[in-house]
Amino acid sequence: MTAPDLETRFRAGDPRALARAITLAESGLPAARPLLRAAREIAASRGPGGTVVLGVTGSPGSGKSTLTDALITYLRSQGKRVAVLAVDPSSPYSGGAILGDRIRMLRHHADEGVFVRSLASRGALGGLSAHTMQVLALMEGAGFDWVILETVGVGQSEVDVAAACDHTLLVLTPAGGDGVQAFKAGIMEIADVIAVNKADLPGADRTVRELLAAQGLGRHDEHTWLAPVRRTVAQTGEGIDKIVAAVLAHRAFLGEAGLRERRTHRAEFEVRTLVQDRVLKRARGVSGDLYARVARGELDADTAADALLAEA
Amino acid sequence: MTAPDLETRFRAGDPRALARAITLAESGLPAARPLLRAAREIAASRGPGGTVVLGVTGSPGSGKSTLTDALITYLRSQGKRVAVLAVDPSSPYSGGAILGDRIRMLRHHADEGVFVRSLASRGALGGLSAHTMQVLALMEGAGFDWVILETVGVGQSEVDVAAACDHTLLVLTPAGGDGVQAFKAGIMEIADVIAVNKADLPGADRTVRELLAAQGLGRHDEHTWLAPVRRTVAQTGEGIDKIVAAVLAHRAFLGEAGLRERRTHRAEFEVRTLVQDRVLKRARGVSGDLYARVARGELDADTAADALLAEA
Repeated sequence: MTAPDLETRFRAGDPRALARAITLAESGLPAARPLLRAAREIAASRGPGGTVVLGVTGSPGSGKSTLTDALITYLRSQGKRVAVLAVDPSSPYSGGAILGDRIRMLRHHADEGVFVRSLASRGALGGLSAHTMQVLALMEGAGFDWVILETVGVGQSEVDVAAACDHTLLVLTPAGGDGVQAFKAGIMEIADVIAVNKADLPGADRTVRELLAAQGLGRHDEHTWLAPVRRTVAQTGEGIDKIVAAVLAHRAFLGEAGLRERRTHRAEFEVRTLVQDRVLKRARGVSGDLYARVARGELDADTAADALLAEA
Repeated sequence: MTAPDLETRFRAGDPRALARAITLAESGLPAARPLLRAAREIAASRGPGGTVVLGVTGSPGSGKSTLTDALITYLRSQGKRVAVLAVDPSSPYSGGAILGDRIRMLRHHADEGVFVRSLASRGALGGLSAHTMQVLALMEGAGFDWVILETVGVGQSEVDVAAACDHTLLVLTPAGGDGVQAFKAGIMEIADVIAVNKADLPGADRTVRELLAAQGLGRHDEHTWLAPVRRTVAQTGEGIDKIVAAVLAHRAFLGEAGLRERRTHRAEFEVRTLVQDRVLKRARGVSGDLYARVARGELDADTAADALLAEA
């Protein structure tokens, strides 16, 4: 495919053109730029209500991938076209298990209304890369009704997911013993919808109660969105309809202006990630000696930072 | 205190001069610079073996603060001087409880060999700030034998702690039900020592077994440090001696060259954090319109990133 041909086919919604565009964006090739612009133009022309961009996060073992798979099945039954971007960790401790869950999603392979892609994260603990944002934009431009970003709930990527999407779904499981103390501080605040998955396990009711109690502690008024807490059993599909309804309720709460604002924030996050990547690359180009001199007290860190920034 | 007077008193180990220096560094005032240089000179002159800089991380509810308190008590009984920097989250969900734990540490107030300071984190989920690194350097320069950084185990700060310290202690509790799947992927890899705290609760033996099994899955040879897993009951001080012994064993494993390398990495982390702070500040100064234009597809993100970087 020549470049103009690729753009034409991308604009026409050809899934192979989308796959190719994603590969170009992942590799950071300049050939991706016109496609990215096209994708954003298309998305903008559809208005802020066009595609539902949903982030799914939660600890390893919470059943995120199974729940994402159940979301695909449910949304397809409603006639929606769905794209999923799964950001993979590279940890030897969890890599295998998560991959196993993801294989389940491949059964949608023959369905033209489903597009699934995996992307490696920046190391096991790094945040989402600028490429992640670009792949989401391409999926959105390709006209899917729902674009789902599934991230591993560890480190920076679980924080970034809220910056990268319209809505964030946090997947929890019935608490083991510690109760509310064990809910991860801060993570609850980025959730727009909370799924208590594996709700057939003991402790689910208590977990829901504690989540609602914890929400009651925060300050809020009629302008605050309180994340709905819904029980799910992803394995059987139970409760998935309620998750979708809660996401759509959050969408209605945001309204057009709120969604437009979220999109601007997403663009801001992407630009800032690109800037940080470039600065880090520059810093890596500097000989290690600069840092050793700071460590020895021969140079102060502020001066070293100035030196790195000036080296444009 | 005039500035040269402050430096003299800081160099002499006056705790009030240290407190003042920390306040200057926290506020980002240039008056902190000569004190930071002095602190690093002193630390460098003591050689890489001088101060043990230990990071403590773990989920809310794991008993990190109680364990840190028990470490202070034990190290004091060994005649060691200890400084603690506790990085506080600002989450309404956990803020109160964690503050409660920290109050316990205040009982060391009358002890001149103990210095405790709290520092707010960059928002509930942000990573460690450059100021955190500076406060650690000041504590180190003030001649404490141990400097302990206690962070909340959420988001970026639990990742940053390994970059900020010589050794990282991960505090876990007996697993509720999910077992090894529930251990946070990636976080295990940054741990140099693992405490299974509240080891008097049921499930402690199984948790230890599962941790050891998970470690067995990773690739390793005789040059790999396998984090020792130790049972503790921080409330009673049980097992704290074994934690200290494990940290010192890791120190011996690193050796002088390894410790020097860790210090250079710490300096690198500090400089990079400063650079990122400056770039973010610059990005915030840009009108929101730049991002809105990217969101609408009128400008590509790469071009926007270039524009931000050029605006030095």
